[in-house]
Amino acid sequence: MYRLYDSAISGNAYKVRLMLHKLGLPCERIEMNVDDGSTRQAEFLARNPVGQVPVLQLPDGTYLAQSNAILVYLAEGTDLWPSDRLERARALQWMFFEQYNHEPTIAVVRHWVAHLGKTVDSEPLLPAKIAAGYRALDVMENHLTGRDFFVGESFTIADIALYAYSHVADEGGFDLTAYPAVRGWLDRVAVQPRHIAITD
Amino acid sequence: MYRLYDSAISGNAYKVRLMLHKLGLPCERIEMNVDDGSTRQAEFLARNPVGQVPVLQLPDGTYLAQSNAILVYLAEGTDLWPSDRLERARALQWMFFEQYNHEPTIAVVRHWVAHLGKTVDSEPLLPAKIAAGYRALDVMENHLTGRDFFVGESFTIADIALYAYSHVADEGGFDLTAYPAVRGWLDRVAVQPRHIAITD
Repeated sequence: MYRLYDSAISGNAYKVRLMLHKLGLPCERIEMNVDDGSTRQAEFLARNPVGQVPVLQLPDGTYLAQSNAILVYLAEGTDLWPSDRLERARALQWMFFEQYNHEPTIAVVRHWVAHLGKTVDSEPLLPAKIAAGYRALDVMENHLTGRDFFVGESFTIADIALYAYSHVADEGGFDLTAYPAVRGWLDRVAVQPRHIAITD
Repeated sequence: MYRLYDSAISGNAYKVRLMLHKLGLPCERIEMNVDDGSTRQAEFLARNPVGQVPVLQLPDGTYLAQSNAILVYLAEGTDLWPSDRLERARALQWMFFEQYNHEPTIAVVRHWVAHLGKTVDSEPLLPAKIAAGYRALDVMENHLTGRDFFVGESFTIADIALYAYSHVADEGGFDLTAYPAVRGWLDRVAVQPRHIAITD
């Protein structure tokens, strides 16, 4: 049985829950508090030295961290991971974009605003984070215009990685009205087989 | 022939130059200015919508971005990419750590201090970036204590990814005196076959 060190408010953890569900792999969920420092204690750092959720414990006891690395591990050998070398690299290109340009802006704004109650008055970094989040959405909008999914012709883990925080960007105040291609893609992802909501 | 949209001051670009050299793949280097906005112009955005170097143009004309995705593309089928599924995921775990925890701190501090001349007086974000950079070095030091390389028993692209900015961290003012395991690993990486310097 897989064991997931999880957080109900983490899009990164949701990626792994969604992926496990798609593959029909049951898991035990251990809910962690990501704001009270418990992921920075020695017991948790032994599972992930970076002190972040999600961490997936494999059936043999091995711990694996970093949501997008976990997605690749689980996707290998399935149709969610491209069989073509260039398409695998493209999927990784978008997954590194997600962790470098998208998560540190869109996810951080959501966490600050929706979970920690920060405002532009209390948090001077917020306006720059919001602007950078919209730049990430601009990149997605341009890429998705005329495309159904991020890589090739079909749904891959690159879509899972980018869906996780995009579909709850509104919780951070992001307005997707001017992003019709992103909204269409969100709808397509949500009707893929064996989808579950972040709240499930 | 490969063509690399490159920057002499970018560790991310150095990763790709180093990898191409190790594989004996010649490339044409196009030097880009990363500070004057030229990577944000339409001509460059057509190569990489995120407007960052490096971008590798493959011999068939295809553009590939994100340094770590490029490393995986080039490494597949070589002994720099593990043959074991879990070790591949571990390599990606460290490469996502590099882009999320290490590059935005250690590389950004180096760029601000060494190339843009910022100081703690002129840049209020600098102290927090420096502290986060040392936390990334702490994680590396703990992991490398008793290990020769990041993944398994041998040198992989995870080492290339983390070497790129670690070995020039001193240019940003980082002091590695208290990091003997990191220093030993830097020395081991530098004597791997077909190594080149960032200045080559």
